[in-house]
Amino acid sequence: GRRRRPRCERLQLLLRRCQEAKACAYCPYSRFPVGAALLTAGGEIFSGCNVENACYSLGVCAERTAIQKAISEGHTRFRAMAIASDMGTDFIVPCGACRQVMREFGKDWDVYLTKPDGTYIVKTLDELLPLSFGPEDLKKV
Amino acid sequence: GRRRRPRCERLQLLLRRCQEAKACAYCPYSRFPVGAALLTAGGEIFSGCNVENACYSLGVCAERTAIQKAISEGHTRFRAMAIASDMGTDFIVPCGACRQVMREFGKDWDVYLTKPDGTYIVKTLDELLPLSFGPEDLKKV
Amino acid sequence: GRRRRPRCERLQLLLRRCQEAKACAYCPYSRFPVGAALLTAGGEIFSGCNVENACYSLGVCAERTAIQKAISEGHTRFRAMAIASDMGTDFIVPCGACRQVMREFGKDWDVYLTKPDGTYIVKTLDELLPLSFGPEDLKKV
Amino acid sequence: GRRRRPRCERLQLLLRRCQEAKACAYCPYSRFPVGAALLTAGGEIFSGCNVENACYSLGVCAERTAIQKAISEGHTRFRAMAIASDMGTDFIVPCGACRQVMREFGKDWDVYLTKPDGTYIVKTLDELLPLSFGPEDLKKV
Ligand SMILES: [Zn+2]
Ligand SMILES: [Zn+2]
Ligand SMILES: [Zn+2]
Ligand SMILES: [Zn+2]
Repeated sequence: GRRRRPRCERLQLLLRRCQEAKACAYCPYSRFPVGAALLTAGGEIFSGCNVENACYSLGVCAERTAIQKAISEGHTRFRAMAIASDMGTDFIVPCGACRQVMREFGKDWDVYLTKPDGTYIVKTLDELLPLSFGPEDLKKV
Repeated sequence: GRRRRPRCERLQLLLRRCQEAKACAYCPYSRFPVGAALLTAGGEIFSGCNVENACYSLGVCAERTAIQKAISEGHTRFRAMAIASDMGTDFIVPCGACRQVMREFGKDWDVYLTKPDGTYIVKTLDELLPLSFGPEDLKKV
Repeated sequence: GRRRRPRCERLQLLLRRCQEAKACAYCPYSRFPVGAALLTAGGEIFSGCNVENACYSLGVCAERTAIQKAISEGHTRFRAMAIASDMGTDFIVPCGACRQVMREFGKDWDVYLTKPDGTYIVKTLDELLPLSFGPEDLKKV
Repeated sequence: GRRRRPRCERLQLLLRRCQEAKACAYCPYSRFPVGAALLTAGGEIFSGCNVENACYSLGVCAERTAIQKAISEGHTRFRAMAIASDMGTDFIVPCGACRQVMREFGKDWDVYLTKPDGTYIVKTLDELLPLSFGPEDLKKV
């Protein structure tokens, strides 16, 4: 069958939740709050924010927080991720690390890149991380 | 005032929750499931598990999952962390990265290191990460 | 002016060096050795390998090792990266984290994806990490 | 046999090299340069610096850079690490992640924590990361 885009009201909620998730961001170092909202295959939404650390490399992004949260509650199939930041001029995009963490759970997701005014563009993960390395590749050696 | 150890029934729940949290571990690479349970200052418990990745360095431990989850729900003050693994012979300990992520939110936590049979030892974070680098040090340059 | 592909003999050396670099891989957990070779703007080559850790998330990939090495020797401008693994069936690709670390130092690099038989394909970093987040974006909030 | 502290002139060189290594730090985000120098069992010295990233979590510390560099040149046994920062008031310490990466290669190292004025204190890794998780633990499940 075909993969389905989230139905309209679900998408509206997802987009709202990623904006709201920014409020919990712990980002005293970058002062760059990011929020994410993850839609599971079953229709549940998990939100995440960035959580930074004085040792910068031990921080984590909003998108990874949302995925880890969903996994820790027993969800492993995902349909869409929406991301929000305070950048008014640009649609916020996931970093390469987050794209790879999403990739672990499939290539065929929708990623909604938003602005604070509510506008967005949507890309598939495969468009954001083409020619990707995944779980199946580890078995090829 | 003095910092208080979690009262007995709360501690029992925390210890149970870290064992249960292992069930959600996504660890196809290490096959080493770990569960964590985090007690907030307000008495709520957040659980976490390890979430691995085909690119090994993009995985995350149970303890960090639990902290990120709590932060993303608005909690920033923590009292205790309990950790569980399937090692029957040894009390599971947090890795250095997790100790540092806990350190971001204070040195004065209790960390319960458990075995599958329910026995445990307890250490403060300061005992597990002595002479630590923290948020206040970044301002010293 | 136009960006130039490495001249032929330099490219041959780069491709050889990424294959050789695999020999130093410390990968007792994945048993998936990877080698990388980085060509600086000045024509020097730095090699890297993956360096894993019992706490999987603290490992690092070959590509990042090569970049960190070059930076620590005073180089900050790069022209090309070549990557090698033992996969005979597929061209090895960088993970999302490595693409992001390369991105820090520009979008306009060549990335040579090789097989053990010496064949390769070449992509620009912008093709591997389209719509990327970079240093300039942090200033937009 | 007993483990030996580096002989005096070797130690002086190690301490000098960690100070010098700071000059290469790429730390536009933290503005907190750190240098490290690693002494191999064979007596060679590898230096490292922090290498940050716009996606903060993809940065790496000086100590890890030094270790990855040494591994990528075929060294796997280490004797001492020295660390330097610009903090005049405090001896710089390694973060938990770096302690864990050092731990991969043994517990019985000396870690020299310095100030810009050349004074230092020395600790073993086991003192800095007591009750550590290591490679042997992964086999216990
Ligand atoms: Zn990210
Ligand atoms: Zn950990
Ligand atoms: Zn990588
Ligand atoms: Zn560190």
